[in-house]
Amino acid sequence: MAIVPPIEYADASPAVRAVYDDIMTTRRVDSVNNFWKVLANDPANLQRVWESVKSVMAPGALDALTKELLYVAVSVTNNCEYCILSHTAGARAKGMTTAMFNELMAVVALANETNRLSNGYRIDVDDRFRDPLPP
Amino acid sequence: MAIVPPIEYADASPAVRAVYDDIMTTRRVDSVNNFWKVLANDPANLQRVWESVKSVMAPGALDALTKELLYVAVSVTNNCEYCILSHTAGARAKGMTTAMFNELMAVVALANETNRLSNGYRIDVDDRFRDPLPP
Amino acid sequence: MAIVPPIEYADASPAVRAVYDDIMTTRRVDSVNNFWKVLANDPANLQRVWESVKSVMAPGALDALTKELLYVAVSVTNNCEYCILSHTAGARAKGMTTAMFNELMAVVALANETNRLSNGYRIDVDDRFRDPLPP
Amino acid sequence: MAIVPPIEYADASPAVRAVYDDIMTTRRVDSVNNFWKVLANDPANLQRVWESVKSVMAPGALDALTKELLYVAVSVTNNCEYCILSHTAGARAKGMTTAMFNELMAVVALANETNRLSNGYRIDVDDRFRDPLPP
Amino acid sequence: MAIVPPIEYADASPAVRAVYDDIMTTRRVDSVNNFWKVLANDPANLQRVWESVKSVMAPGALDALTKELLYVAVSVTNNCEYCILSHTAGARAKGMTTAMFNELMAVVALANETNRLSNGYRIDVDDRFRDPLPP
Amino acid sequence: MAIVPPIEYADASPAVRAVYDDIMTTRRVDSVNNFWKVLANDPANLQRVWESVKSVMAPGALDALTKELLYVAVSVTNNCEYCILSHTAGARAKGMTTAMFNELMAVVALANETNRLSNGYRIDVDDRFRDPLPP
Repeated sequence: MAIVPPIEYADASPAVRAVYDDIMTTRRVDSVNNFWKVLANDPANLQRVWESVKSVMAPGALDALTKELLYVAVSVTNNCEYCILSHTAGARAKGMTTAMFNELMAVVALANETNRLSNGYRIDVDDRFRDPLPP
Repeated sequence: MAIVPPIEYADASPAVRAVYDDIMTTRRVDSVNNFWKVLANDPANLQRVWESVKSVMAPGALDALTKELLYVAVSVTNNCEYCILSHTAGARAKGMTTAMFNELMAVVALANETNRLSNGYRIDVDDRFRDPLPP
Repeated sequence: MAIVPPIEYADASPAVRAVYDDIMTTRRVDSVNNFWKVLANDPANLQRVWESVKSVMAPGALDALTKELLYVAVSVTNNCEYCILSHTAGARAKGMTTAMFNELMAVVALANETNRLSNGYRIDVDDRFRDPLPP
Repeated sequence: MAIVPPIEYADASPAVRAVYDDIMTTRRVDSVNNFWKVLANDPANLQRVWESVKSVMAPGALDALTKELLYVAVSVTNNCEYCILSHTAGARAKGMTTAMFNELMAVVALANETNRLSNGYRIDVDDRFRDPLPP
Repeated sequence: MAIVPPIEYADASPAVRAVYDDIMTTRRVDSVNNFWKVLANDPANLQRVWESVKSVMAPGALDALTKELLYVAVSVTNNCEYCILSHTAGARAKGMTTAMFNELMAVVALANETNRLSNGYRIDVDDRFRDPLPP
Repeated sequence: MAIVPPIEYADASPAVRAVYDDIMTTRRVDSVNNFWKVLANDPANLQRVWESVKSVMAPGALDALTKELLYVAVSVTNNCEYCILSHTAGARAKGMTTAMFNELMAVVALANETNRLSNGYRIDVDDRFRDPLPP
């Protein structure tokens, strides 16, 4: 059980309900996840985090599915069970197949491996990797 | 300087040269990065890691650019400077724009934030996130 | 179940009991946590860790509650369930309110986010942040 | 050098200047750090992150200095050099003494140690640590 | 339950059975762990990871037990429950005593502590630690 | 440069000198590393950390070289440059060859890879890995 109890819609303040409503409208679902129900104990933080998720995860230069895959990659690296399962579900809803999930796992695992080879051997960065990105 | 010295092509054994040749052929480049030159101190590991990178990073259910973005996401989370810079260069060579890089950073950062909210509050996983993926 | 079994007071050696007694006296409690009961399988390490906790967590330039909050911040970042729950309880016993806990979560989460923005973009440290602290 | 170049005030768009102005006004300083200058390459993210920092780091149930100490604790655990140095400077500006910094380091280090003892031995959480916080 | 279901020998394709057979022959056991049964959903990755484990974990300049202890050290640092328990069992099968396990935990914990002291204080590397290893 | 300045022997208090003397005697060297010189800003913590290192790293059920290798494994996983370089030097002084170092890197890297496969797929722990160690 979470350290603070989840707050259901029926028990929520108007400010919290407004966030819940926006989540449900934006995502076209009829309930909100435990994540939001627990954050609702701190309404200002609930709103802040939701606004961040809403804007950062919207499709832009990267499409929505790619963003979900990136979310899973980070969550696996950090071992956040809740985030792995919720964003895997989110990725699946956006079109991720099992084959894509398997490749995602392989890439994340390999990157964690070569990260340690690079850091462990203290490998010098090749000069040509130092070019900044164009504006 | 790395803990073991990089091995240049001219000084490499035939087994190491064979891997270097395969890297250059596969990637259509005319030299190999410091990463491979340092790993070459352990030829068996050099070959193993290269075979892994070659097979895991090849386009499949996920395209090559998406895989590079995932690699950067992991490398940023782990703070591997070499990997961030080399895979950012790799992603750029495969079409990543600066706008895509900026969105990548925003997603990775936000995922690291919500990972800690989920883990910190010990939020229970919603039952519907427990459905396994289809075969 | 832990990898080695917890050792209860009744079954403990005199050396282990002496540490248990000191923990109970120092903390004014009548039993010790599973953490200590498991460490007791290695009496020398039990004593070493307890002496460290006793001295580091005592109030000094920082008060005892602030130290517990810092402990929770680290434990959330590392995802140590035992440590999050035990030190949240410890912080609560020293006066942490639910409002303080919520703010703690928000700060820890945000720091994890901006850590990745700084590391991901490889932002140069501003010169004025290089001033050493005064003796 | 950062992966994207910092944007100076003189070269910034009105939207970016508005954020810079708010940072300088809120913090009563006459320039902004490299962190913000680099984020300015993505004005929407710049504004989002600044709004988050502004609201989360404002004094509330926790005072501003405690929040800076927590920020340093997370940044040390993650090894973010930029964040360690900038938030140590921030903490110092808010009253952190060298003695406080030394104790902060000791607590962060010890928490990282006992996190691994708890996770490594797989210690069961004591039942009484499962009480949720009061609303 | 894992995100993709484990594949039992009776249900496995010839390619997967060939890997299972090699695991059982190499390790002189009559079944394979859940780890391999889950990886079997991606036969190419199953084979790649098994070949890596088989070659990296074979005794060489380091003996097999030392390699298992190192595996546990990494897994504790990353908090991978599956890996801690499976490689602790593996180390035990290769001769690790409880006394050795306790010392392993103490070293891993202490290293995590001093890692943060070094990174937190930003301690300069002593020149003599910069000597590369001999070829 | 470290956040607090290193304290040289000539400038050290008697309490700090006593620790420096014990380090030099125990290790049979004629100077102490920057690590200790920086910790010396907090004499109580200096003594505590040194006593911990002295007792934990002494040969016991595990020999001194194995303990140094474990230290490097943790330090690579956490990316602590100071610790990687100082404990690699320490391991070398205790007999680690370059071949051993290369195998160490391969094991650490692979463990980081399979840690993420286990955590990412949420693989269930096999029942037989749950047996506790014998007392």
